[in-house]
Amino acid sequence: MNHQQTHETATTGRPPVVGMIGAGQLARMTAAAAIGLGIRLRVLAAAPDESAAQVAADTVVGDYRSTDDLMAFAAGCDVITFDHEHVPQAQLRALEQAGHVVWPSAAALRFTQDKLEMRSRLTQLGVPCPRFEPVESVADVVAFAERTSWPVVLKAVSGGYDGRGVWVCEDPAAAAEVLSHGLPLLAEEYVPFERELAILIARSSSGHGVAYPVVESVQRDGICVEVLAPAPGLSAETAVAAQRLGLELARDLDVIGLLAVELFETRRGGLLVNELAMRPHNTGHWTIEGARTSQFEQHLRAVLNLPLGSPAMAAPAAVMANVLGGTDPDLYGKLNHVMAADTALKVQLYGKPVRPGRKVGHVTALGSDLASLRDRAARAACYLATGAEEPVAEPVASTGRPM
Amino acid sequence: MNHQQTHETATTGRPPVVGMIGAGQLARMTAAAAIGLGIRLRVLAAAPDESAAQVAADTVVGDYRSTDDLMAFAAGCDVITFDHEHVPQAQLRALEQAGHVVWPSAAALRFTQDKLEMRSRLTQLGVPCPRFEPVESVADVVAFAERTSWPVVLKAVSGGYDGRGVWVCEDPAAAAEVLSHGLPLLAEEYVPFERELAILIARSSSGHGVAYPVVESVQRDGICVEVLAPAPGLSAETAVAAQRLGLELARDLDVIGLLAVELFETRRGGLLVNELAMRPHNTGHWTIEGARTSQFEQHLRAVLNLPLGSPAMAAPAAVMANVLGGTDPDLYGKLNHVMAADTALKVQLYGKPVRPGRKVGHVTALGSDLASLRDRAARAACYLATGAEEPVAEPVASTGRPM
Repeated sequence: MNHQQTHETATTGRPPVVGMIGAGQLARMTAAAAIGLGIRLRVLAAAPDESAAQVAADTVVGDYRSTDDLMAFAAGCDVITFDHEHVPQAQLRALEQAGHVVWPSAAALRFTQDKLEMRSRLTQLGVPCPRFEPVESVADVVAFAERTSWPVVLKAVSGGYDGRGVWVCEDPAAAAEVLSHGLPLLAEEYVPFERELAILIARSSSGHGVAYPVVESVQRDGICVEVLAPAPGLSAETAVAAQRLGLELARDLDVIGLLAVELFETRRGGLLVNELAMRPHNTGHWTIEGARTSQFEQHLRAVLNLPLGSPAMAAPAAVMANVLGGTDPDLYGKLNHVMAADTALKVQLYGKPVRPGRKVGHVTALGSDLASLRDRAARAACYLATGAEEPVAEPVASTGRPM
Repeated sequence: MNHQQTHETATTGRPPVVGMIGAGQLARMTAAAAIGLGIRLRVLAAAPDESAAQVAADTVVGDYRSTDDLMAFAAGCDVITFDHEHVPQAQLRALEQAGHVVWPSAAALRFTQDKLEMRSRLTQLGVPCPRFEPVESVADVVAFAERTSWPVVLKAVSGGYDGRGVWVCEDPAAAAEVLSHGLPLLAEEYVPFERELAILIARSSSGHGVAYPVVESVQRDGICVEVLAPAPGLSAETAVAAQRLGLELARDLDVIGLLAVELFETRRGGLLVNELAMRPHNTGHWTIEGARTSQFEQHLRAVLNLPLGSPAMAAPAAVMANVLGGTDPDLYGKLNHVMAADTALKVQLYGKPVRPGRKVGHVTALGSDLASLRDRAARAACYLATGAEEPVAEPVASTGRPM
C-alpha cells in the first residue's frame, strides 16, 4: 500500500509533502535538506516558536499525543515521519489504520519506545547486548547483581534520552532509591567499555539500505559531546562487522528511514548494542558537511522511497562537537569570535533558548588531522557555550561510566 | 551608522533578521543557509507560491517597486539585501534615508542597474572592458562599427539578464531592428573570446574581502548552462590577477555582500569585464557543496558584518549544470532515475513551475576528474530537463558568440 502511494505522488508532477512530527533541531535541519530536494516539509510543532517552526514555511501547531491533532496534521501529507520517538503506539496505529504512510512504522518504533521490547527482540535475533532483566524490587536487582556484578545499571523501560532515565547503582540502597520513583525498570549489567561507537543506517521501503562510516561518540554525563568520523583506530574488520550489524538490524526490525545504533566497544574488541534511535541522530550531524549525503537528506530519501544517496565521506575526517547551553543566552553574539578564529568551521545553531546543558547547536570541523579537528571543534563549541576558550579536548578513548 | 546598528543586534541575544527582497531561487537557497547560522530570514515575495516563499517561515507578499511595501517589509529587519537587482534607485534611497541598513547600497547597486554607469565607472578605474558607447541611431552604431568592427553587440542600458536585452547585430539592418524597440542602448565591441570566466567576491562592511576560486562558465543562448570550478587550465598568474581584479572592484564600487564578475578570456589571455552582479550568482551555486562556505552563507555573513568564511574548495573540482525547463512539468518524478544513476550527485530543485528554458534547478558533481564530473552533471541535468539521457558534454573551450 505504502509504496504505491509514494509512487503515485511521484508521477503527478506535484512534489510530495513530508509531514514530520516534532519541531526540534532534527526537523529544523531536515527543513534545510528538503529545500534542496524540492520536497515540501510540514512540521507538527508544540509551539509556534519551536526550533523548526521558526524556519519551516509549513508549520502546524498541535499535540503529538492527540489523535485528532495528528489526523488533522497528516491530511495532505504523503508520508509521515518523526523528529522524536514519543508518539504513543495507539496514535501511531490510528494513523496507519487511517491509511497514512508512516515511516518508520509503529511496529518498528516500538523498539525505540520500550527498552524491554528492544532488548528481548535483539536477544532473539542473536545481537550481542549487555545482560538485562526486568526488575520490580530491590531483591530483583540484588539477584541480578549476584549473577553479573555491582554496579548495576537501571533504566526506565520508556521515556529516557540523553542520559535521563538511566542510573548507575553501586549498591542496593541506590537501587532502592531509583525503584522508589515507581517507574517500570530494567536492570542491565555495567559494561566497562573502552569507548562508544555509533552506526547510522538508512533504509528505504524498497529494502535498499546504506551504512555511514562507523563513528566514535564521546559522552559526558550521558550526553554526546563529540563525534569523531570515522572512529579512529577501528579495524576495517570491526567497522564492516558493525555496519553489517546495523544493516541487518534495520532489515530485521523493518526500519524505514534512519536507524542509529549506539554501541559499546569492550576491552576485548567486542561490540554490544546500547541504544537504538529511528530518526536523524546526534551522532550523524557531521554528515551535513562531512558526507556526500547528509543524514537529513538521506532520511527524506528513505521515507519517500527515493534511491539512497552516497554515505561516503566528503573529507578524510570530521569532528562534530555539541554546543551545550551555558548561562549566557546570546549564542549569536559569540559567532563573531568563533568565525574569526576559524574561517573553515561549520556552525549550526538551533534557535533554541539557552538552558544549562541543553543542546543548542553544534560545530563541525573537516580535514585530515584528527587532533587538530578535535581541538578546533572543542574550542568553538566551548566558546559558544561559555564565552571562554578551553583548548584541551577529552582523550579519545577513556574508560568511563557506561552512559 | 550601519555598522553600529548591526553590532548592537549582535549583543542583544536576539539573532538578527535579514530581509531579502525577492523570493526566487537565490532567496530560497539563502533560506537554507540561514537555518544553519540561526539567522532569521524574511523574504519579500511577489506571490505566496514563489520559490523562496514556499520554504521560508517569514514571507511577506508585496511589490518591490512600492515604497510603502518596502518600508513595511523593512520594519523589524536588521539588514536589507536582495535576491535580484530590480529595486529602483528611488526606492532604495528611500529605504536608506529612513535609516535602514541596505547592503549592497543603492550607490553600489546602480552599477548593476545601469550598464552605461557600470562601463563608465570601470573605464575610469582602468578596468579592461570591451569598447563601448551609448547609441541612439543606426548612424551611431555604424560609426561605432567603423572604429571597431561588425558584428556590434547592442545592450539595453537597464533591465537585461540571462541573455535578454543583448543583441548581436551583423549589419546596420539588424541594428535598426533593435533600435526600433525604443530602449536606451549601448554598443559594445564583439569580443571573439576563448571562454567566459567568473569571479565571486564577498566583502563585509568592515572592508574584509574574500575571493572564491575563478570558475569557467559555459553559456548557451546567453544562459549559463555549466560552471567548472576551478576554471581548467587557468594559469595561477591569471587566476590571481582575476581575483585581485574582483577584490579591487568590490572595494572601489563599495560592494557589501557578494560581487560576481563575469569575464571574457581573450585569445591573447587578457581578461575583459562583461557583466557585474551584486547577489548570489548562478556561477557560484557549486559552492553549496563544493566550497567550505557556500555563497549563500557568505552573503549572509557579509551583510551582517560577520567574519567571512573560507572560500576554499571542499573537493579538487566541482561541476554545476543548470536544469533548464523542458516540456514535462514533473521534475520530482525524474529524481528517482537521476538519484539511482548517480548516488553522489547533488540536486537542487527550485520549486518553480517548469517553462521551456527557465532555470528550475541545478545539479553539482564533486570529485577530481573534470571530464567525468562534466559528464555526470550534464547527464543528470539533461535527464531532469528532458527525460532523456544525453551523454556528451559541450567542449570545454569554444569560441562562441559573446553572450
